[in-house]
Amino acid sequence: MNMSIIRDAQKGHITPEMEFVARSEGVESQKVRKLIAAGRLVILKNTRRDTMPVAVGESLGTKINVNIGSSVDFIDADEETEKALTAVKYGADTVMDLSTGGDLDTIRRGILDAVSVPVGSVPIYQAAHSDVMDITSDDMFNMVRKHAADGIDFMTIHAGVTINAVEHLRKSDRIMSVVSRGGALMIAYMTHNDCENPFYAEYDYLLEIAREHDVTLSLGDGMRPGCISDAGDGAMFTECITFRELVRRSRDAGVQTMVEGPGHMPLNEIESSIRMMKHLTDGAPLYLLGPLVTDIAPGYDHITAAIGGSVAGMHGADFLCMVTPSEHLALPTIDEIKEGTIVTKIAAHVADLVKTGRRGRAIEWDDKMAYARRDLDWDKQFELAIDTDKARRIHEFRKSPSDACSMCGELCAIKIMRDVRL
Amino acid sequence: MNMSIIRDAQKGHITPEMEFVARSEGVESQKVRKLIAAGRLVILKNTRRDTMPVAVGESLGTKINVNIGSSVDFIDADEETEKALTAVKYGADTVMDLSTGGDLDTIRRGILDAVSVPVGSVPIYQAAHSDVMDITSDDMFNMVRKHAADGIDFMTIHAGVTINAVEHLRKSDRIMSVVSRGGALMIAYMTHNDCENPFYAEYDYLLEIAREHDVTLSLGDGMRPGCISDAGDGAMFTECITFRELVRRSRDAGVQTMVEGPGHMPLNEIESSIRMMKHLTDGAPLYLLGPLVTDIAPGYDHITAAIGGSVAGMHGADFLCMVTPSEHLALPTIDEIKEGTIVTKIAAHVADLVKTGRRGRAIEWDDKMAYARRDLDWDKQFELAIDTDKARRIHEFRKSPSDACSMCGELCAIKIMRDVRL
Repeated sequence: MNMSIIRDAQKGHITPEMEFVARSEGVESQKVRKLIAAGRLVILKNTRRDTMPVAVGESLGTKINVNIGSSVDFIDADEETEKALTAVKYGADTVMDLSTGGDLDTIRRGILDAVSVPVGSVPIYQAAHSDVMDITSDDMFNMVRKHAADGIDFMTIHAGVTINAVEHLRKSDRIMSVVSRGGALMIAYMTHNDCENPFYAEYDYLLEIAREHDVTLSLGDGMRPGCISDAGDGAMFTECITFRELVRRSRDAGVQTMVEGPGHMPLNEIESSIRMMKHLTDGAPLYLLGPLVTDIAPGYDHITAAIGGSVAGMHGADFLCMVTPSEHLALPTIDEIKEGTIVTKIAAHVADLVKTGRRGRAIEWDDKMAYARRDLDWDKQFELAIDTDKARRIHEFRKSPSDACSMCGELCAIKIMRDVRL
Repeated sequence: MNMSIIRDAQKGHITPEMEFVARSEGVESQKVRKLIAAGRLVILKNTRRDTMPVAVGESLGTKINVNIGSSVDFIDADEETEKALTAVKYGADTVMDLSTGGDLDTIRRGILDAVSVPVGSVPIYQAAHSDVMDITSDDMFNMVRKHAADGIDFMTIHAGVTINAVEHLRKSDRIMSVVSRGGALMIAYMTHNDCENPFYAEYDYLLEIAREHDVTLSLGDGMRPGCISDAGDGAMFTECITFRELVRRSRDAGVQTMVEGPGHMPLNEIESSIRMMKHLTDGAPLYLLGPLVTDIAPGYDHITAAIGGSVAGMHGADFLCMVTPSEHLALPTIDEIKEGTIVTKIAAHVADLVKTGRRGRAIEWDDKMAYARRDLDWDKQFELAIDTDKARRIHEFRKSPSDACSMCGELCAIKIMRDVRL
């Protein structure tokens, strides 16, 4: 059996995956090894997959994940594969297959075959495909095993949805209760069977399965708040305290583990929330959905998420999950996946400008754009733009007869300053 | 001659405009008066216009302005009026006419007639309409007088572009020099005539003209950085120090005055920049363009601006200037004005959620949306959405046969939790 990456790191071995990550991120390989050993950095790579490793965590660039997958109402395996390819084309570092409709094995394997980035999944969705009331805890673990054997690189497991957390939920004055699909499914199962969460109760068994193919666990935030007013309550913090225990057990067992964070949150609470989660989990890589910083903007939640994600990334979030314009409204189309991916990539880059600083790697891209703008070199600007086609289309739709753009034409500040020759 | 609003406030009079602002903002009228007297809050209203006053500054909701106006290359007075109406429809608190092409008097007066919100302008654009080299300082002041007489409520005046600031610019290692059109025009004039900025040199004369119709001055940031790397240099700070002097002179002379801020800036520098500007100007209302937090995203700069604007607003910016998707690329279309307005409104609301807190006025809107979501009341959600049409369109394009949305259908977390009955 293969050693796991974290075990190698803990024993002082620098593997080719660590070397690769060190090179591509511009970090010392010894530092990568140490951070992995401490559980502060994970490399997403199932031993079954022959793909480029992608790393998430401290001292690295901010990564983005794109959620795809069928729903009960819209099932089209080809479209989901197309979404995966679109996501990767526009900068997704990973994709997650969240399918809940159709032949889930076929869809998942199609996506795994189609892309060479790490692929994540949420096995409980498939385990509960028929009815969560009918399944056993064995069904849940077997589904985890199947996804791992298929090559899934990281999995969301809602192991923090404990009886204790549900008690806090029961006593809370939340408007929206639980908005996590996986969290709700776990609670339905636990309530129906009057039992503890199997992934929590038998976490060691879960770790054993994960270790077999070096799958990274992502501790899902089943208690994430679903609106601004619900942010930061007892249920959420209880879940996070459970994450503290679980990441320690993961590290001891040689399983790489990330934690997931909320959800909806006022902009000024993001910093303390990130610091608290990083502190409680001893610096576990932090994977965020949003945070969405207002509830009033369905149709624009890729933007409310980018606002929250930029600020979260600046304060240490490592991994941002894309949100599309169709969040809260519908299953996204391919175009919406594209838009969500680009906007999330912008947020990650904005965070990286802060993380790497005024002389860092991230700003090189911005500086190139600044020089192209100064030179009124439009082709260069389009080439450098995060969305070349859109930038060119807007520019050419209202083209200036001058060499400037049609906002100012000959009155362009850059042209005026050229003539001034300070 | 009318008293000016700030003079009334300084003398202890609470005018109907102050009462109106106090009521609409939910603030004590005595507090409004004090803040106006101290120059920390301005009411935008030319005595010539019979419109609702709009206030900008401390203790108030974050306002947004939408820039419209023709360019040298695209001249269509009707379209610009249509843009103004679109902006107001989607939540603009004010519009600024930045026209530089066509019959500028006609366009400006058309906009003033069309909307009942405060209208701003930049008189130097019209003064320099032919060639900035041919004009005199009298032409500049006469243009200010003309705009004031037309009813313009607030004007951007680049009085901080002094010889001293230009010296700092000359010595700087900026990539992009000056990107403010007004700033570049002033520098061209000053260099050509080897003189000080007339608006600075004869600021008292400017104040006299402004006072005549109670026009609010907005001190334009001609030195604003045009890219991330140029942020926060000596030229920018020099201009801001000049603003300190000018706002004091404005207050003494009974002229309401705002200051404008950058531009392009890394996300983590926004807080200190806002604090510095507020400190230097003794809390003058702060009117921001952006800040854009990265340079790589032409086509998405309404979003890079919303990220920066949300954070700036949270830290005390009072007035956000809309940026459209066509920023850096072209003169915006009506649709782009709509999109930019909505996204800027989102940023202002995100800031207000912080400014007014967990029990404040802003969160009422979010809570209503949260209840509508909990109840799966789609019509209510669309009605509450910042863009009703877009929310409905996305939802209905992929409609679920269930009462949930097509992302989850029957697997909707809200539906699962209803059955659980915690």
